[in-house]
Amino acid sequence: MLGDFTFHNPCRIHFGQNALDNLPSELAEYGSNVVLVYGGGSIKKSGLYDQVMEVLETAGKNVTEISGVMSNPTADKLREGCRIAREADADLLLAVGGGSVIDFAKAVSVSASSDEDPWEKYYLRMEDPDGDIIPVGDILTMSGTGSEMNAGSVITNPDEKLKIGHVFGSEVIPRFAIVNPELTFTVPDKQMRAGIFDAFNHIQEQYFSGEDDNVSDYIAEGMMRNLIHASRIAVKDPTDYEARSNISWISTWALNTLLACGKATDWEVHMIGQAIGAVTDATHGMTLSAVAPAYYRHIMPYGLPKFVRFATEVWNVDPSGRTDEQVALEGIEAMEDWMDEIGVARTVGELGLTPDRYDDVVKATGR
Amino acid sequence: MLGDFTFHNPCRIHFGQNALDNLPSELAEYGSNVVLVYGGGSIKKSGLYDQVMEVLETAGKNVTEISGVMSNPTADKLREGCRIAREADADLLLAVGGGSVIDFAKAVSVSASSDEDPWEKYYLRMEDPDGDIIPVGDILTMSGTGSEMNAGSVITNPDEKLKIGHVFGSEVIPRFAIVNPELTFTVPDKQMRAGIFDAFNHIQEQYFSGEDDNVSDYIAEGMMRNLIHASRIAVKDPTDYEARSNISWISTWALNTLLACGKATDWEVHMIGQAIGAVTDATHGMTLSAVAPAYYRHIMPYGLPKFVRFATEVWNVDPSGRTDEQVALEGIEAMEDWMDEIGVARTVGELGLTPDRYDDVVKATGR
Repeated sequence: MLGDFTFHNPCRIHFGQNALDNLPSELAEYGSNVVLVYGGGSIKKSGLYDQVMEVLETAGKNVTEISGVMSNPTADKLREGCRIAREADADLLLAVGGGSVIDFAKAVSVSASSDEDPWEKYYLRMEDPDGDIIPVGDILTMSGTGSEMNAGSVITNPDEKLKIGHVFGSEVIPRFAIVNPELTFTVPDKQMRAGIFDAFNHIQEQYFSGEDDNVSDYIAEGMMRNLIHASRIAVKDPTDYEARSNISWISTWALNTLLACGKATDWEVHMIGQAIGAVTDATHGMTLSAVAPAYYRHIMPYGLPKFVRFATEVWNVDPSGRTDEQVALEGIEAMEDWMDEIGVARTVGELGLTPDRYDDVVKATGR
Repeated sequence: MLGDFTFHNPCRIHFGQNALDNLPSELAEYGSNVVLVYGGGSIKKSGLYDQVMEVLETAGKNVTEISGVMSNPTADKLREGCRIAREADADLLLAVGGGSVIDFAKAVSVSASSDEDPWEKYYLRMEDPDGDIIPVGDILTMSGTGSEMNAGSVITNPDEKLKIGHVFGSEVIPRFAIVNPELTFTVPDKQMRAGIFDAFNHIQEQYFSGEDDNVSDYIAEGMMRNLIHASRIAVKDPTDYEARSNISWISTWALNTLLACGKATDWEVHMIGQAIGAVTDATHGMTLSAVAPAYYRHIMPYGLPKFVRFATEVWNVDPSGRTDEQVALEGIEAMEDWMDEIGVARTVGELGLTPDRYDDVVKATGR
């Protein structure tokens, strides 16, 4: 049954091959001090950096940069980002990159107005923002996390071996997002595959939570079916626009709160995956793929009807002449075959996690 | 393939049995002059009117009323509504009712600030709003149209025998919506059935438009499957909360622009249905149900693969040993059986349309 909820996602999302054409009209909504947030320089190689800088110049903006945001953005980097944004008196944080860069920009947006330590305030103590929130806009270069249209922000503290996500309220959702699937063509193969599984697992985690007869689950099945189909095309031809655009759009909707509406959600695979990420610095999507099959095999007996439904509705498993257990298991096996086909990590060993660090992972889950 | 598009739907939607509890915090966002817009008095019978008035009084609002909004709101009524809203210096138009009342409130919201005739400006000349737009909020009492979370507004001119819809930009989308599926329990049976088919046809019209391999179509299939399932429960027990809440939530998402993202859409069934509505004043959903089967049988040969997909994915038609034509036709037949099961008009005769007025319908389509 649908429980009570509020849905509010005011992000204006421009999607498609010409999405960047909308940047000038978006920039016009904000003051002149723009802080550009990006990662390790791939946007310089691709030419996107120059394109964006030209638009910013034409718009007469004063641009300050926060560069070098890493794939698991750290608490120290966040503190540095807050200093820069504060000194620049930022009117807009323009994040150009994937989920890490956008997550980071959101963390800065709620933190820069305050002297409190952002890691302690928002990630250890999980407080609500109580000061000014600097608007965030984003130009997405890699699909998977859904960060472009949600209020989530994951920050890692390598010293404390903790990787913690905070889902803020709708006031922290980026005001605008520019999603051109062509920009994802240049993402390294491994990152594309990880992003696909990240999006798939976002849908899955919500699908396997809560009650059954909920429109959210029917929508989730449609999204999983299309994602499986499109991913098979994309791993063979990463420049197939139709496949990549479907993957991008599904990734956005997999985690912009729609699927969670009216449902309980537990996010167990993410909790374990993030703990592994805190200890290994492994790619987020790959930590999920290493955990998911074992986790779902583990919980399957406790929610068998849903796993039967997953098998028949998402993987077209024929249930005739089989027990529910067999059907459910065939669904998991079909998922594993697909994971091998698209090429994602299947064991924690592949992520560099050795048995002597298992205790650290357990500790990092906070349990 | 997903074409370029912008998605922007800033409506804050409160959903569930306690959704009305959010009205005070929403009202606090607006000035003190509230114009309450409603229909024929069913909200007085149900007690909702008193509940809402109490909240408005507690919030210290000056309340002016526009009552008697009819199921096909007329141009004359719109002119009257604009006068009332202008004289009240409205800060908020609070629509309490179904799609007609909310459509009407949106029409007033874009028109009250101007002296131009709203029917001519927005429905005959299809201009964009160029003056102040009064914010609209809504409390939904009947599901189907999706008006609660979109920018569409249909107005009828009985003298000119025209019923015309204008889809405005996101600035006309209601700022907030309160959707408690329990409020729909008291809707007359016929209206509930019409609303179900209205929502179904919204999904269908978008599904049968544009290219095939688009995530929108996969989401549409999930929504149609759930709607068929939930509607079968609801017509037997209109107070089944799970079924009614799924119907309400699907109706909202069937027409809040998500399904149209990246797709061409033609809305032919609606164009013909609205023409019939202009001539007969019949219930909107019933005009669609009277037109849809014949229309889809007519276009089936031109888009056979999509109709085969509709048959197998939405209606579970077994394709083995059958031609594509047979499979596609079985899909339409399954839809017709379901329409009979939930009880919606299947012929224009049932709507009171006699052959001597067919010419008026053709004229009303504007072709």
